[in-house]
Amino acid sequence: MPTQFVLSGRARALNSSAIREILKVTERPEVISFAGGLPSPATFPVERMRQATEKVLRDAPHAALQYGPTEGYGPLREWIAERLSRPGAPIPASRVLVTTGSQQGLDLLGKVLVDEGSKVLVETPSYLGALQAFSLFSPRFEALPGDAQGIVTDALDADGLAGARFLYCLPNFQNPTGRRMPLARRQALVALAAEAGVPLLEDDPYGELSYGGEALPSLLSMNPDGVVYMGSFSKVLAPGLRLGYVVAPEPVYAKLVQAKQAADLHTPSFSQYVVHEAVQDGFLDTHIPTIRSLYAQQCERMLAALAREFPAQARWNRPEGGMFIWVELPEGLDTGALLAEAVERNVAFVPGAPFYAIEPRTNTLRLSFVTVPGEKIDAGVKVLGELLKAAIAALPG
Amino acid sequence: MPTQFVLSGRARALNSSAIREILKVTERPEVISFAGGLPSPATFPVERMRQATEKVLRDAPHAALQYGPTEGYGPLREWIAERLSRPGAPIPASRVLVTTGSQQGLDLLGKVLVDEGSKVLVETPSYLGALQAFSLFSPRFEALPGDAQGIVTDALDADGLAGARFLYCLPNFQNPTGRRMPLARRQALVALAAEAGVPLLEDDPYGELSYGGEALPSLLSMNPDGVVYMGSFSKVLAPGLRLGYVVAPEPVYAKLVQAKQAADLHTPSFSQYVVHEAVQDGFLDTHIPTIRSLYAQQCERMLAALAREFPAQARWNRPEGGMFIWVELPEGLDTGALLAEAVERNVAFVPGAPFYAIEPRTNTLRLSFVTVPGEKIDAGVKVLGELLKAAIAALPG
Repeated sequence: MPTQFVLSGRARALNSSAIREILKVTERPEVISFAGGLPSPATFPVERMRQATEKVLRDAPHAALQYGPTEGYGPLREWIAERLSRPGAPIPASRVLVTTGSQQGLDLLGKVLVDEGSKVLVETPSYLGALQAFSLFSPRFEALPGDAQGIVTDALDADGLAGARFLYCLPNFQNPTGRRMPLARRQALVALAAEAGVPLLEDDPYGELSYGGEALPSLLSMNPDGVVYMGSFSKVLAPGLRLGYVVAPEPVYAKLVQAKQAADLHTPSFSQYVVHEAVQDGFLDTHIPTIRSLYAQQCERMLAALAREFPAQARWNRPEGGMFIWVELPEGLDTGALLAEAVERNVAFVPGAPFYAIEPRTNTLRLSFVTVPGEKIDAGVKVLGELLKAAIAALPG
Repeated sequence: MPTQFVLSGRARALNSSAIREILKVTERPEVISFAGGLPSPATFPVERMRQATEKVLRDAPHAALQYGPTEGYGPLREWIAERLSRPGAPIPASRVLVTTGSQQGLDLLGKVLVDEGSKVLVETPSYLGALQAFSLFSPRFEALPGDAQGIVTDALDADGLAGARFLYCLPNFQNPTGRRMPLARRQALVALAAEAGVPLLEDDPYGELSYGGEALPSLLSMNPDGVVYMGSFSKVLAPGLRLGYVVAPEPVYAKLVQAKQAADLHTPSFSQYVVHEAVQDGFLDTHIPTIRSLYAQQCERMLAALAREFPAQARWNRPEGGMFIWVELPEGLDTGALLAEAVERNVAFVPGAPFYAIEPRTNTLRLSFVTVPGEKIDAGVKVLGELLKAAIAALPG
């Protein structure tokens, strides 16, 4: 008989995203794509990477090419711990687990903390990749109220949070909205979660990409024993290395290590050695400002184009950092349908609906401004503005 | 209240291995360790890797450092497909998924094919890392009868296999036993699985490490639509790259890609580019014979030491390839207890019990011979021989 591949329940629940299919065409060079979550390759420190790989393959080739500990390369873990430590809130290296991109942190945390039907709290909207990773373990999502400043902490109480396996959030320049939680909300959130005994999962890939002013304190620094923190080198060095990390209190840490061992034994030693070499001597402190300044400039360009081209009924935020602008349109408008039209005119974006754990709002969309040259930002936003005006004009009523 | 980290059922079922704790001491330089599953660093082609990274960072730095497709780097997938294709059994690149080590293939296959209580067939004994990966998804393991030639196909019938989600096996130089399935058994296994409609999962990290004679045909080549194949660059280039692959028929392939996306987006682009560069121009065809020849020589050295030092009641195999020798001892002997004694005398091995999915046999152990220099092989085996003789003498009856 023909071989029967019987899929697990969780595999059957995975579905191929229609959006992903449409966005495949954005690889065509004639498409102006605001869809990607890719950092700008112009920011990749190629020469530094070249020096680092050369040094690693000269000084420690056998260790860098051999199996390594599941927890990660010791000196890199120490470097990460030191960078995250704050006065009064030291982070020991023993809490740092190096992961294959921070996406893997999401998978491991889902595995270790989520049973079928577990209550899991997320933002409205939230990061699509996290929703996908957690969904494999069949949680029951509850979406917390959100506005332009993130989770509306005034609308929460500890009883409402209680019983959740965790509360997942991105306080800095969130994907998809680009928004940042102000200090007062961070403090309120940490206090509420502590009162409810609910762990916070703080996902922070964009924290270093503030365009100006002071960085706000991480949730981790406010309560190291109540927060699992995820960071990444993807947005400050290069994403093709797939190097991220999780900082977790015991005993979650020990379980994450066991799950990681079953998942891929360990993150490539080679990339860990190379990145550790590349970040020596304060390299990031001179490199990251160049990324910030490029992205701030690109962001201004897109904001100016939006103000010029988009219809009066559209609303968007002015990001203080990161890679994304979030657009809200009149009720009834479906950005999924709009995407198909836009792609026909060689412009792409990501519709907002998939970023909602529940009750998707189809009148939203995400724009990334970091990889597209200025003139193409202008041209692409102009096309979108025309399509939006036509779509709004066609709305009933 | 203190933050409550409520673990998932699957995380609670993960346990920290007592053996793993004991084996941590084997990192001390004075310990002669036959425990590792590590390839010999003497075989790592450092100069070739240096050239390959240099070329990649010169010719394609931005692509190699950027996010890439979940399926893997196209030219590398094509190279893998071509290498696995056989006359009459071509493998299209569209079936190749690049993974973060072949361990990740096991995790993804467990996710996609195993529900709680699913019947899963494994060898007696089987690879520990696979049992761990599948266990996270709570299958019901059934262990097929095994002998020195692998699965005893004469003892099977299609009815007994039927209903299993898959049958997982390592036909070449299995971890932990070092055994290889002869051609007739491969043919019988493929025929039985096809009759029962049960997918075969063929794990083949050691297939290229045959010490002499012809390679035997893979199960994949015998039934490409009924076999999911896992391969790796860990044993033929370097494990620190964490580069493996899964070859799977549709529709499993599509689900594996979706699960992979949630797990780590994709395997590091950088390592994929570097490995693709390193394997050009038939490099492996000149490199692999040097590994085979080193391992064959190390194997002979250990076999000679075993013959000299081990008690008459011990039995072991003569591997035709790979990295491992499997030792069976008289009933009643507990190699777990023996390990503690051996480590006190600075010698280490892996007890056999954890390699059994059910009914562990505690009178077995695994020896790796590839990383230990010859004189240390002699010295370490001598110590083990003494301990074994004493332990056998102390057995009741």
